[in-house]
Parts: sequence; structure tokens; C-alpha cells
Amino acid sequence: MNQNICWIGVDWGITHLRCYALNDEGNLLDSASSKDGINKIKDAKFEEALLTVIDPWLESGKVTPVLACGMVGSRNGWLETPFQKTPCRPCDYEQFVRITCNDSRIKIYVIPGVANLKQIDLMRGEETQLAGLLCDIDSAIVCLPGTHSKWVQIKDGRIEKFSTFISGELFDLMSNKSMIRYSVNKDGWDNNAFTEGVLSGFKTPELLSNSFFKLRADDLMHNIDHAVLRSKLSGLIIGLELAGAKDYLKEQNVQLIGEPVLNNLYSIALSLLKVETSAHNASQITLSGLKYGFNSMQKYLGSEQKGNNG
Amino acid sequence: MNQNICWIGVDWGITHLRCYALNDEGNLLDSASSKDGINKIKDAKFEEALLTVIDPWLESGKVTPVLACGMVGSRNGWLETPFQKTPCRPCDYEQFVRITCNDSRIKIYVIPGVANLKQIDLMRGEETQLAGLLCDIDSAIVCLPGTHSKWVQIKDGRIEKFSTFISGELFDLMSNKSMIRYSVNKDGWDNNAFTEGVLSGFKTPELLSNSFFKLRADDLMHNIDHAVLRSKLSGLIIGLELAGAKDYLKEQNVQLIGEPVLNNLYSIALSLLKVETSAHNASQITLSGLKYGFNSMQKYLGSEQKGNNG
Repeated sequence: MNQNICWIGVDWGITHLRCYALNDEGNLLDSASSKDGINKIKDAKFEEALLTVIDPWLESGKVTPVLACGMVGSRNGWLETPFQKTPCRPCDYEQFVRITCNDSRIKIYVIPGVANLKQIDLMRGEETQLAGLLCDIDSAIVCLPGTHSKWVQIKDGRIEKFSTFISGELFDLMSNKSMIRYSVNKDGWDNNAFTEGVLSGFKTPELLSNSFFKLRADDLMHNIDHAVLRSKLSGLIIGLELAGAKDYLKEQNVQLIGEPVLNNLYSIALSLLKVETSAHNASQITLSGLKYGFNSMQKYLGSEQKGNNG
Repeated sequence: MNQNICWIGVDWGITHLRCYALNDEGNLLDSASSKDGINKIKDAKFEEALLTVIDPWLESGKVTPVLACGMVGSRNGWLETPFQKTPCRPCDYEQFVRITCNDSRIKIYVIPGVANLKQIDLMRGEETQLAGLLCDIDSAIVCLPGTHSKWVQIKDGRIEKFSTFISGELFDLMSNKSMIRYSVNKDGWDNNAFTEGVLSGFKTPELLSNSFFKLRADDLMHNIDHAVLRSKLSGLIIGLELAGAKDYLKEQNVQLIGEPVLNNLYSIALSLLKVETSAHNASQITLSGLKYGFNSMQKYLGSEQKGNNG
């Protein structure tokens, strides 16, 4: 199999390292991952962590290009890469940053994140998912739900503007570290409570920290089911996000890029605001984005080579 | 000194146990405290924890009344007391709950908290501070800033309604547990950044979780001073609270009951909305409230005794 591997795509985030082996037509030959996310790497042993996963795909005497996206290019990552600035076309080869490494079998490039200077906002990794979407759609409003949810306006293949909401992190803090933790379950779900939370968070965002307290008070006063309170908490935080993302909601159609569970929640929440959604699986679209990036590199190198020959 | 001690006031919260020895005129003879807050007490050893602090004030053969307020009467406290319901006059003897204990030198009463059934809200301890305020003022809008800030409407000596905002807890979570912790100092202060935060949180509460992210992004993009970002974070959360407390802000004059540092911050924040404030020290007013409660008990017992004699 190894001789068919043309390049390796890498999605290296805070908590995971995911690698993909592809042939020259961009077909997936193999994939592998580890929990060596950026947060786990000590003493800058990035190369070791990467080789642990991709070594079986490498051949001596052959150089395999590796294209990586995500927090690997952040301040705490392997090498801090400069951000592209909006408006911009993401995953453009001319912006890729080469990392020098010791193993001569690989040649590593990092896809830079994107900065929105006007609105003071940043993304790393999502630009690759957006590039994956650009294979099919040229203009769209995109929501990437997650720990740090992003709302993005794409126009004519370029990222025009975007905003980040720390909804996933806020949910995690409230449900695991705050006094509400005594009143919310680890699991269980109630759609009505979620819906109620979304509408409340959307309509009265100013009452957020009051609504948080009420979850606990409601439990103490009325012994409410903790799965109900968990669903309401989730709804409140997503409702707040939607209220803050109003500027992006004028088009009444949103492309969702996230894990299936989150896509589903956001789809329900947005339907309450009469907004339609199309859902894309985050891992799949990341791979599409890496291919988009590799193709841009191939085109550039191809034309460069032609130039040299001509 | 002991022979002059007529009763003991106790303020027993989550993190502290504060005790006051008073004579029959309500003058403070001595005070003592420990860090045996409710959260520290194991195996229900409440009586032991209390005696550790007040034992020097007790005499054998004499029964000293102890009047306690705060989380001691909560589900995780010594004895869960039922809540008074709004509208109500706080610290009313008829609502006090007697706790039976082993030491015959003390007779313990707990002041119950207050529930706002309509708005699903609770207080324990603040009702005693409000009773302290009632010694001087009959009607007011009161803000008690803290871990769980309360906004209260008092009318004709009764608590009409109130709302809780978990501002202090949110600040603690964001500055110590979230990704913002890398961008905020433990100390240092910038008034302009605080002001900016208050106005932003007040005017665009729906952008709260976006504003949280921007603090981190601003640091990564522009290396902003971490004391500035800490002040802005504080302002954002207080601004959100003020936006949520709009219903209470119609009177343009607010009584603040809190620690001096917090009173000062809220006074600055409210002045931005053209609201005047009067500040009361939290510990002092708690003691006044305990006296108010003890007087109500004396009056009642006095009249009861008269009734029995007549």
C-alpha cells in the first residue's frame, strides 16, 4: 500500500491528532489518530508525536508531503504561523508555512489560521473546513458549532467576516464547575426544555446569569429532573449564541459544520427561528479541505515547474 | 465580660463562620470567626464547629440564645429551613426555626431564607442584611453584589421581589477555569477597560460569549496588558447583570450592600447609567440585621410572657 501514498493530511487540534493517507487522486487509503493533541505535547516533541502515528506510511528514500491544519500552528503549537486576514481565500498554498524537521522522509506544511482584524477574532482549523465547503458552495452563512463556535460569512469563495462564541466551553464550565453542577445530569435529554432554553436565551440574553441561577433554584424549590435542567442549560447557551449571531441570520439558510450531535441541536435551535440548515460532518469536511489545500499546492508547484522548464 | 453577654449572632455562610457576642442593649462586646464555612463541615459536625468559636462566651448554668443566618439553614447546612415567601417581612421571629443541640448552654434559632416563587429565586443570608437596612429605610431598590448578586425591591418594610445573577461566580470561572485565564492577571486594574466592559455588556448582552472570546483574541493579536483584560472581563459581567436588572433600575437610586471593593465597582458601573448609589458595608449590616431579628424575638417573647402572666 505504501507505494501508493502520495501525501498525508493532518488535523492537529487541542485534544486530538488525526492523520489521513491519500493517493494521488485524493482517495483515502488509510487513517490513524492519537490523543497527542497540542495540549499533551511536552518539550516540543511534535515531530515524535506525529511520526508515532504516520511512520507506517513512510518509506525511506521517498519524501512524502504532509499538510497540517489546526492548533499545530498556534502559539502553543509546533510553530506559530501568521494569520491570513479577512477577506481572504482560505487554504491558499502561497500562505502555507513550512516546518523544518529532522526526518528526511517528510516535508511538512502548515495551513495558517485566519484573523478578522476589524472584529478582533481568530480561527485555526475552521478555515480548512470552510475550504472543504468551498469545493461545493461559493457563498454561504456557515455555523461551526463546538467548544468555540464560529459564525462565518463566505462570499465568492472568500471568508468575509466571522465571529466566535465560546458556547461549548461555557456549557462545560457551567455544567461541571459551577454551582449548577449539582443540578444537571451528565446525560439524559429533554427536547422541550432545550427548546424553552433556546427561546429564553435568544429573547432575553441579558438574563443569562439570572437564568443560570434559576436552574439551581428550580431544582431546590421543585426537584426538577436533572436531565431537564441540563437540556435547558444547553438551550440557554445556544440561544444566547443565536441572539449574538443575528447579523449572520439574515439569509435564513445556514450551513452547519460540526459533530452530528451538535449539528442536530443547532438545526433544532435554528428551526425555532425559521432558519433552514444543511449539515456537514466535521471530520469529513476537514479532509475535503485538506485536499483543497493540497490541490492548490500541486497547482502552484505545477505551474512553477512549468515556469522553470519554459 | 461573659456575664454581660446577652445573646450571640451568627453569620454562617459557605466559606466562613462569623460570630458576634452582644449585650442586652445590642452593643458588640466581642467577635470571632473561623473558616469552618458550610462547605467545610464534615459528618454534620455543626455544633462542634460553632462551639469552637463561641465557647469562650458561654457560662455553665446559663442559657445564651444564638441567632444564626445564612447557608446554615440550607440543604447542605445544619438544618434545612423552609423559605419565607415574597412578599414578606424578613427576619420575623415567628418564622425562626429552632435547632436542638447537645450543649445545654445554648439555644439556637435560624433565620430562614426567602423564596420568590413567581420568579423562581432564592436567598439565604441576604434577608438578614435587608432587615439591617430596614432599621433605617422602609422602601428601596437594593443591590447586593457578590458571588451571587441579588437585586431586591423593598416596599413598606417588605421584600416584594428579587432576582439573582451569578456574576461573581461567572467572573471566577472565566478568569480561573476558562481559556481566558491565560490572558487575565490575578490582580491589577484599569478603570477605562472596566468602563468599556460595563457599557459593552449592558448594551449588547447577546454578545457576551463572543466578547469573552475577543479578550483572548485581543491578547493573541495585540498583546494587551492582562490587567486591562481582567478589568474588561469584570466590566462585561457586571454590565450584563445591569442589563438584566433593568426592571430594578427605574428608581435611579440604589442601595448597595457588599464588600467595599465590590460596592465601589458597582457604584462606578451604575454611575455610567446615571444611577446614584448609597453603599453599606456587608458585615456591619448583617450584624444590624441579626439585631433586628433578635429584637423581634424579644418583643414576641415579651408579649408572650405578658400574655402568660395576664
